[in-house]
Amino acid sequence: MEKLLKEITPKSQDYSQWYTDVIKKADMVDYAPVKGFMVMKPYSYRMWEFIQAALDQKFRETGHQNAYFPLLIPEHLLIKEAEHVEGFSAEVAWVTMGGNEVLAERLAVRPTSETVVGAMYSQWIQSYRDLPVLINQWANVLRWEKSTRPFLRTTEFLWQEGHTVHRTAAEAEAETRQQLGIYHEMMENLLAIPVVAGAKSAGERFAGAIETYTLEALMGDGKALQSATSHFLGQNFARAFDIQYLDEDGTLKFGWTTSWGSSTRLIGALIMVHGDDKGLRLPPRVAPIQIVIVPIGRGKDREQVTRYAKLLSEQLSATFRVKLDDRDEFTPGYKFNDWEMRGVPLRIEIGPRDLAQQQVIVARRDTGEKIAVSEASLPDTLANLLDLVQDTLLQQARQYQQENTFAVENYQEMAHHNFKGFFMGDWCGQETCADQLKQETSVTIRCLPFDTELAGTGCIVCGRPGQHRALFARAY
Amino acid sequence: MEKLLKEITPKSQDYSQWYTDVIKKADMVDYAPVKGFMVMKPYSYRMWEFIQAALDQKFRETGHQNAYFPLLIPEHLLIKEAEHVEGFSAEVAWVTMGGNEVLAERLAVRPTSETVVGAMYSQWIQSYRDLPVLINQWANVLRWEKSTRPFLRTTEFLWQEGHTVHRTAAEAEAETRQQLGIYHEMMENLLAIPVVAGAKSAGERFAGAIETYTLEALMGDGKALQSATSHFLGQNFARAFDIQYLDEDGTLKFGWTTSWGSSTRLIGALIMVHGDDKGLRLPPRVAPIQIVIVPIGRGKDREQVTRYAKLLSEQLSATFRVKLDDRDEFTPGYKFNDWEMRGVPLRIEIGPRDLAQQQVIVARRDTGEKIAVSEASLPDTLANLLDLVQDTLLQQARQYQQENTFAVENYQEMAHHNFKGFFMGDWCGQETCADQLKQETSVTIRCLPFDTELAGTGCIVCGRPGQHRALFARAY
Repeated sequence: MEKLLKEITPKSQDYSQWYTDVIKKADMVDYAPVKGFMVMKPYSYRMWEFIQAALDQKFRETGHQNAYFPLLIPEHLLIKEAEHVEGFSAEVAWVTMGGNEVLAERLAVRPTSETVVGAMYSQWIQSYRDLPVLINQWANVLRWEKSTRPFLRTTEFLWQEGHTVHRTAAEAEAETRQQLGIYHEMMENLLAIPVVAGAKSAGERFAGAIETYTLEALMGDGKALQSATSHFLGQNFARAFDIQYLDEDGTLKFGWTTSWGSSTRLIGALIMVHGDDKGLRLPPRVAPIQIVIVPIGRGKDREQVTRYAKLLSEQLSATFRVKLDDRDEFTPGYKFNDWEMRGVPLRIEIGPRDLAQQQVIVARRDTGEKIAVSEASLPDTLANLLDLVQDTLLQQARQYQQENTFAVENYQEMAHHNFKGFFMGDWCGQETCADQLKQETSVTIRCLPFDTELAGTGCIVCGRPGQHRALFARAY
Repeated sequence: MEKLLKEITPKSQDYSQWYTDVIKKADMVDYAPVKGFMVMKPYSYRMWEFIQAALDQKFRETGHQNAYFPLLIPEHLLIKEAEHVEGFSAEVAWVTMGGNEVLAERLAVRPTSETVVGAMYSQWIQSYRDLPVLINQWANVLRWEKSTRPFLRTTEFLWQEGHTVHRTAAEAEAETRQQLGIYHEMMENLLAIPVVAGAKSAGERFAGAIETYTLEALMGDGKALQSATSHFLGQNFARAFDIQYLDEDGTLKFGWTTSWGSSTRLIGALIMVHGDDKGLRLPPRVAPIQIVIVPIGRGKDREQVTRYAKLLSEQLSATFRVKLDDRDEFTPGYKFNDWEMRGVPLRIEIGPRDLAQQQVIVARRDTGEKIAVSEASLPDTLANLLDLVQDTLLQQARQYQQENTFAVENYQEMAHHNFKGFFMGDWCGQETCADQLKQETSVTIRCLPFDTELAGTGCIVCGRPGQHRALFARAY
């Protein structure tokens, strides 16, 4: 029993090591043969599939269709949008040989697809009748990162990237906001992660964007994680890639484009927002296994209990994602720890006495609470408990975020909190202040939250009058 | 009306040009900026999603889980299994630069993942209790092909690749057959494509496999298309990658592995098996749009008809995949041709007279038949018609295959059929005969079909006693 727990470093002792221990011990990932790459094992990949399903449905409901664009982008295309290439050039992996021949032009493994999508859209779009174009793709991308962490920053990651073209700036801007809303809802409802939504400051925008909207979540160590972004690209990419349409009035106009993405990074957030010293704690809606059943007993008792547990498992599987752990080689105690480490929301224990009393014991992963539940009321109780766990995790995360959000009047105040948490403060709007802050404290402007007002206490760096209320934090 | 039809070259005139016309005009693909790559537009990508959903469900039901392995494979891993690397080395694309630095070791963009999966499995598998390992991945792969055709042979394609490890040869062999069975069922039930199932001859096996099982389908021009394969890899990869497990008897043993795959190539088969001179003909189960509604009429009539068509479209959308074509700028005739080209199985026409008589006209894409259907019986009739179209397409394809399968006693007989069709003949089992046949006629051994018997007429090439009954054809 003790062995498993000892394998996970306590969060308080070394958060980074805790994270590494959890993802390995909970069987989520393994390190690939090439540095910076990871293998997503079935347990974490299943979580990604739930995220995919939730987003894909919403994208479809809002009129988007999936398509697939090529992995490799010729260099001459990648460099067409000046700001964009500047933002990505240092991170690109290049294919220079195909078959046994050296290629005439080197090909970028896509770091993102605005360029190749733009080149195609310029051919597809002729008339205002062709608009809007609302396309999403599920794909892998590569960014050659110097320092990597599984899920949070990997050289290759899986994501979806939406790319749309609209007739007017207002329509494109509305699309950008709508898609951010879809991410927002998914994060709270599926992942039980509260976020702060807002606009990026100019210095933190996507390379080539007019506006970048973001969702910022607070991790268990007080650092922020940018969780999903949605970009209003204005006409920058339309001009670079000649995306023009003949409008109803007979004149040729540039389209207004957007792009928006979310990635396997979300699984990193899931771990860091909900995990504790025993390992993962998974919100039921994204848990590959929602209920684990552990039969308890020896000898003849064990046989009887296991037979019953098998029946129960089959019955509950019609409604829930259930796993029966009838392994012989482990003790119940070991199994309890094992499934707690993997974050399974509910555990059902069945012993000979429970069997006699027509009841089972249900243990909650989030609170540790154990209750006896009669056989008759079990399905309903489990459904209610799963909702309760989902809700409790969101409430706990919300409370943690609230308790760790601090209004500051000057940036030195952040030191009182060891620079851990969300800091709300006025900002003069000058990038020089943002740069100074970053250099001195590693704190960055995470976003300019929607619907906030200036406190009027002056820029937290220079003291001059504030232009924006901003969310500051150290970030992943 | 004529314009659209003229855009598609008749099959009989130039099959290859017909194919190219159909995929472009039906809005399925576009050519990407890099030669040999394609863009899958929403219409064809949706078909891929239906194929994915059908296979994924069956994989899951048979105990498989999805995971994700890295895109890039270091050269030293790729070359570990000798036959395997020989089979793929000429087709590999290499990443040689990451960021702005030249890499110490070049990295292959995966042409298939046996090697990197094998390297991981050797770490994951310790004991017989860890077996079987049943993992699938949905991914993109690259093979640097000299001559490409959209869907059929592209430098990048999307596929799924299953990789499993078993305790015994028999279990691995059974897995290989089971997965072939899943492909077989999907092809007939979803895509309405009949196939011949069998084992590949040694010369046509997957590089490194002991046995390769295949499904061969007959295209509209009399050529075969290898549609899905399942490989029994014996212990070849287990030895190369050191996949060993401690068995119950306390000894260390090599695992037995399999791999199996199917790809976006299936969409090429769908086009070539069912398409006609008007364009695509889609089996309803894989059709992104199952029913298109075209309102007909002018002026005031048109308004009334369109209003009704809209209501009908909303009502039917609960059950079917429906598209209302209320575009102003095109005539009904143009729309009929347009949707026929895209292969939509059923078309509903509604004119003012139909409206008055509380009926609609339903036209079948497969037969061209038109029937009047009363409003009251419409939903049931549509459901029945969709089943009928699905079934008819399968029967037609089956009949075509039967009529174009010829028993031959010597290979010269194939010339009577211009080498078009499936040819069944005895084969002595010598690769020299297979080589001679290929060189002289471009005909290859597609498979040694299951459950067939020798005719006893001698090898179709050398006349010596036959060892196998074989399926011969020219192939894509």
